[in-house]
Amino acid sequence: MGHRAAIVGAGHSRFGVLAEGPRALLRTALDGAVASVDRGLDRSAIARGYLATLGFGGWQIGNASAVLAEELGVPGLPTVRVENACASGGFALQEAVQAVASGHSELVVVAGLEKMTDVSSARRRYWLGVSGDTEWERQAGLTFAGVYGLLASAYLDRYRVSPEALAEVAVKNHENGALNPNAHFQKPIRREQALSSPKVADPLGLYDCCPVSDGAAAVVLASPELARRLTDSPVYVDGVGAASDRLAVQERDDLLGFSASRRAADAAFRAAGVRREGISVVEAHDCFTIAELLALEDLGFCGRGEAAALTLAGATRRTGRLPVNPDGGLKAKGHPIGATGVSQAYELFLQLRGAAGARQVPGARTALAHNVGGAGATAAVTIFSTG
Amino acid sequence: MGHRAAIVGAGHSRFGVLAEGPRALLRTALDGAVASVDRGLDRSAIARGYLATLGFGGWQIGNASAVLAEELGVPGLPTVRVENACASGGFALQEAVQAVASGHSELVVVAGLEKMTDVSSARRRYWLGVSGDTEWERQAGLTFAGVYGLLASAYLDRYRVSPEALAEVAVKNHENGALNPNAHFQKPIRREQALSSPKVADPLGLYDCCPVSDGAAAVVLASPELARRLTDSPVYVDGVGAASDRLAVQERDDLLGFSASRRAADAAFRAAGVRREGISVVEAHDCFTIAELLALEDLGFCGRGEAAALTLAGATRRTGRLPVNPDGGLKAKGHPIGATGVSQAYELFLQLRGAAGARQVPGARTALAHNVGGAGATAAVTIFSTG
Repeated sequence: MGHRAAIVGAGHSRFGVLAEGPRALLRTALDGAVASVDRGLDRSAIARGYLATLGFGGWQIGNASAVLAEELGVPGLPTVRVENACASGGFALQEAVQAVASGHSELVVVAGLEKMTDVSSARRRYWLGVSGDTEWERQAGLTFAGVYGLLASAYLDRYRVSPEALAEVAVKNHENGALNPNAHFQKPIRREQALSSPKVADPLGLYDCCPVSDGAAAVVLASPELARRLTDSPVYVDGVGAASDRLAVQERDDLLGFSASRRAADAAFRAAGVRREGISVVEAHDCFTIAELLALEDLGFCGRGEAAALTLAGATRRTGRLPVNPDGGLKAKGHPIGATGVSQAYELFLQLRGAAGARQVPGARTALAHNVGGAGATAAVTIFSTG
Repeated sequence: MGHRAAIVGAGHSRFGVLAEGPRALLRTALDGAVASVDRGLDRSAIARGYLATLGFGGWQIGNASAVLAEELGVPGLPTVRVENACASGGFALQEAVQAVASGHSELVVVAGLEKMTDVSSARRRYWLGVSGDTEWERQAGLTFAGVYGLLASAYLDRYRVSPEALAEVAVKNHENGALNPNAHFQKPIRREQALSSPKVADPLGLYDCCPVSDGAAAVVLASPELARRLTDSPVYVDGVGAASDRLAVQERDDLLGFSASRRAADAAFRAAGVRREGISVVEAHDCFTIAELLALEDLGFCGRGEAAALTLAGATRRTGRLPVNPDGGLKAKGHPIGATGVSQAYELFLQLRGAAGARQVPGARTALAHNVGGAGATAAVTIFSTG
């Protein structure tokens, strides 16, 4: 199989409300990624770097990728900022795969970063919305909680599903997050707690929403040949897929899922040459609980309207037949926007190497990451395997 | 030669203070690029799209790449936003080359866009600075005119050069811009005018600074095999190079040039396997007149301190031995931030096909584009040829 790349190292900062500034978070993730390469890595061999960040709060809006070279300690490194809202990390990873697969760069680093809590509440409100359609929806007052509330209303109504299915997503992901030392929330919650939490955007309550988090993650990619020299257990990127959709939600045909996720998944499965049944573990983009249900359907793991029953039956628990978000997902691990897609790759790197500790999915061989930008205007799906 | 891609079409809007909004500008450039493909192009065959934009003024800060699919009219197209300040276009082009060279996408579109004039003056002041180092320099009041004023002072002092060399860059680029129907400024100026213009940041006067412009540009890239089916005269990307530098200017070793430009040029020449003498025409990043002098030296077309004499001798005029910025450059054509690097590729596509009309450089066979982010914290150099 040509056109491939492999992950040989991965690093991660804590996610949460953190004292560290953006540069320190980035450095933690980068140092961790470099240190994790089994046979050691000469940083100066890195040929290109990608920084995924929305630049939340504006600490460095333009040209931020240069900071990656500084914090990695590789003067002059060619660096590129990739921004596709909450899917920035997933898309940056795909650009890195292309950089390697093209033969232009044999060794590439991808980092995702967001510092979200260190801004005033007015700025926070502003930046939380900037990835929504500005012309018609954001300026009219539609927030992302509002959009996902609309999707959840439509879903519960159309498929006659009870809010317990949403609560079950939260309970599962908090249970997983409790086993992840990097997670923003590390406490299990009860279903009644989730169901009775204050409403944010009906029917979504507090426990249906991911938190606002600081954090960074990084992975190192290499050509398959170099990867085998750097480690005995590289994790291969077998297939990538991506798509877009109308930016404004009101211009979509359908509120019961994201066509971008469907197209991206179809492309990734085609490229990887695997079937849905072949996937051992999934990282799905659960910015709100409803998003995980929609993702299961959009990715083709069940039919439309079937994700609620699948979830309530326990299939997506860590011990179920299709473990989803073993690291706690955006819901409990946290969602530092640009970092999220890279954090998904970090988690699957650990899972496929059997190195995920207390949250390990036994025998994981093939994995899928699903990263959504905004309310589905962009989506990236990536399939990984042990080779 | 593997790992290559070829430009098969290019489009361009007017640059200037324009009535059109960002979507209309983008559409003009995209429609032009598609229409310019000699044997016609089925848009639905486009597999990936790159949007280079700083998002100046904030009309759509996050997830803006989805707009590219909408304005191109290809629903679901995978789209990626690339942002490296004023070098966004040059880096987006390189990502597109990698997408093609990796075998992941056979046909790719790259668009650059900025709508800079439709914002309040307070917002304009804010956004003009966001690509400078925020922590130490921007917030202390250092503007880009300020930075380049410092570089110009150092240059004139160190090499005992007269301000006439700066004025000559302005005169030459305005003369070229007068032949470019898309240029922001289409009027020649006299050297005395440039020398006596009001100071912006001493020694730089009004005519030493590029304008604030709206505009968009787009190119279509294909694999060499597909390119030969789409046109008899594809323009090949023979080599790309890129680099970064410290974001803060105060942390650099040297104010007499940009090390990122030097590294990027060396890498591009190595990849393309051509010598400096082999270049027929150059697009250099002249955001200020001093930047064109520094570029000539950083790119290796002359020694350090020699660009002033080279320029005063007329070597960089359209009729000289090394024509630089035949389209008027950022100085006269305008500088809609994200569009600039793509506009350079547009110009060289025309020049290498002998289709640049009144501003044609006779017999151009090999060309170089040089695109700088901010004050040299990122730089991209790309070498093109007729094959």
